[in-house]
Amino acid sequence: MSVTRPAGFRAGSATAGLKASGTPDIALLVNDGPLDVAAAVFTTNRARAHPVLWSEQAVRTGTARAVAVNAGNANCYTGPEGFSVTHATAEHVAGLLGAPGAEVGAIDVLVCSTGIIGVPLDTATVLAGMDGAAAALGAEDEHGEGFAGAILTTDTHAKQAVHVDPAGWSIGGAAKGAGMLAPGLATMLVHLTTDAVLTAADADAALRAATAQTFDRLDSDGCMSTNDTVTLMASGASGVTPAAADLAAALTAVCHELAMLLLADAEGSEHDVAVRVVGAASEADAVEVGRSVARSALVKTAIFGRDPNWGRVLAAVGTTTAEFEPFEVDVSVNGVQVCRAGGPGEDRSLVDLSARWVDLVVDLHAGTEAATVWTNDLTTAYVHENSAYSS
Amino acid sequence: MSVTRPAGFRAGSATAGLKASGTPDIALLVNDGPLDVAAAVFTTNRARAHPVLWSEQAVRTGTARAVAVNAGNANCYTGPEGFSVTHATAEHVAGLLGAPGAEVGAIDVLVCSTGIIGVPLDTATVLAGMDGAAAALGAEDEHGEGFAGAILTTDTHAKQAVHVDPAGWSIGGAAKGAGMLAPGLATMLVHLTTDAVLTAADADAALRAATAQTFDRLDSDGCMSTNDTVTLMASGASGVTPAAADLAAALTAVCHELAMLLLADAEGSEHDVAVRVVGAASEADAVEVGRSVARSALVKTAIFGRDPNWGRVLAAVGTTTAEFEPFEVDVSVNGVQVCRAGGPGEDRSLVDLSARWVDLVVDLHAGTEAATVWTNDLTTAYVHENSAYSS
Repeated sequence: MSVTRPAGFRAGSATAGLKASGTPDIALLVNDGPLDVAAAVFTTNRARAHPVLWSEQAVRTGTARAVAVNAGNANCYTGPEGFSVTHATAEHVAGLLGAPGAEVGAIDVLVCSTGIIGVPLDTATVLAGMDGAAAALGAEDEHGEGFAGAILTTDTHAKQAVHVDPAGWSIGGAAKGAGMLAPGLATMLVHLTTDAVLTAADADAALRAATAQTFDRLDSDGCMSTNDTVTLMASGASGVTPAAADLAAALTAVCHELAMLLLADAEGSEHDVAVRVVGAASEADAVEVGRSVARSALVKTAIFGRDPNWGRVLAAVGTTTAEFEPFEVDVSVNGVQVCRAGGPGEDRSLVDLSARWVDLVVDLHAGTEAATVWTNDLTTAYVHENSAYSS
Repeated sequence: MSVTRPAGFRAGSATAGLKASGTPDIALLVNDGPLDVAAAVFTTNRARAHPVLWSEQAVRTGTARAVAVNAGNANCYTGPEGFSVTHATAEHVAGLLGAPGAEVGAIDVLVCSTGIIGVPLDTATVLAGMDGAAAALGAEDEHGEGFAGAILTTDTHAKQAVHVDPAGWSIGGAAKGAGMLAPGLATMLVHLTTDAVLTAADADAALRAATAQTFDRLDSDGCMSTNDTVTLMASGASGVTPAAADLAAALTAVCHELAMLLLADAEGSEHDVAVRVVGAASEADAVEVGRSVARSALVKTAIFGRDPNWGRVLAAVGTTTAEFEPFEVDVSVNGVQVCRAGGPGEDRSLVDLSARWVDLVVDLHAGTEAATVWTNDLTTAYVHENSAYSS
């Protein structure tokens, strides 16, 4: 169950030939309403792909009728023609979805691309694929599954999550890659649907709150993508208007589940690491420290080597502007406090790093705020995958 | 020829047993004057080793008579006793160097440590080693060579450079590791000597200018050490006072030569990469962009894979705050302009990445400033070395 679980949505997929594997590479998600509410968040990289440049503007209306995705080509740094391909895709899909008296405009179609950078994307190939995906549209589970599969690139399996609310509304989601997890093909794409009754402002606020706590804190290799996009469409087909807090909690839970699926499927990784920073003077401090530890090549290689190397953790903490005193910091790895007050604590040989999941806790002893950043270890397989494939 | 090339300096080395290899691990460098001018720069990491905390204060006088180094143990995060070990070392070496009527104070001895973090350093072991190094002091080439060898950790060979000025003064230098090159054992140490006649202010200004253009722009893996230290001692024994510009140029040249030696010996590296950013609105912009590219795991793995992946370069540029327009940026790799105006340029298959040296040029087309940041590729060997050794 996936993006078609909420009422009011149809999905379709097709094979245009953009992936070397020959598997489906075109995915279309349509909101049949009654509402056409939409919100989206995008990479903060200033170097942005053409579909990001388009969709960012298109979603400003707070509405969208469809999300059109191609995998296998990021349509990024493809020259002035790149934007034309994106716009042609939106226009073509709008034409496919509209009916006499119920026209759909190009502006109602968000476009996402993922795959290789710097290689022109052929317009005719994409449009033919969209024809196929439109012809295959449906609201069954299999259609949602097909959508979730067609957006994949280096992922080893589809990633889906669903929230079914007792009050009668639901959320569905599909994700691929991760901006900083599977950047070999340069994109995290997440597509969320809900049949709750929402205003555009509700959708935008809930989406920003949910991504800030989940995808924004996923930092596998510190590399920011040019194509990252998270979309949310609301059909209102359930007729139920959830309380803002309920919506936010459910959306955050679905995003968290998808984020953990992305983490677990990161290219070449052997460990998932939750860097939890506690005792911070502010949440921003906690996030800064968490991100610094999560980005340290030395911390990440140590975890790959199953070495609870707390000295490298403190060295990463020391590069931040967060409030802390070096000789007050504690570090625990999988429950063993290996560093106490900036010095050796419990015996590091007590730490078991054989499991995939790693809990790394840094206590700054500078306040009461906390935050978690998730990352992966840095492995020889990561280097191999990212040196062997041009993207 | 090394730190003993300038007149007025003696060096000594000894084996205290701190390195598993059983090779020399204690190094002592003494300035016999007539001047005792000194300057030093240290890691900007807020988590600093005990010898850094000591030496940073000790050098504030603008004078020093000796630099005492141990390799094999960083004396970092070793609890309150760690500072005592450092201070005892300074005090002990001062006692060894002083004579009745010509006492040397502990404050005249800078202390540096490099090696494993978080493991207590035994005082008696270090002091015995300093006794040995003091007994072996001499001003011959072999003494300088011995000093350069004893400070090494994971380095594969000693790194030395000399400038002999036609005006009758000289500079000598020895380096090990690199703050961000061989961080497995957590330190770049550089020790410079000169027999030029300098004031403390001259020495400090020349050293800061030289390191800002050289070691500060060496960024192998983005990890900042807890122990990085660069020292300069001036004996004045040549009797020659160089022009400030001559001193700055010579000191920068020696630092550049040592920096390139560090780059070439970086753990597990297969390529040295000069990221040259031109057309920047400011030098700070150029450095920020260069550092961002140099720190991108995706750019670095691509170079390891001999792939001139300019899309990853632009993605790294896009994460900066520098002034630029994405669709105006050019990227050249080893002379081939693979990206022109934010789109595909010359055929990337024309790029030859078989040699160790890589010239990567980013033209921002936003001004006339430029800067170079040097880095290495990210290799499976780097991951292996840094996951296999606890440090």
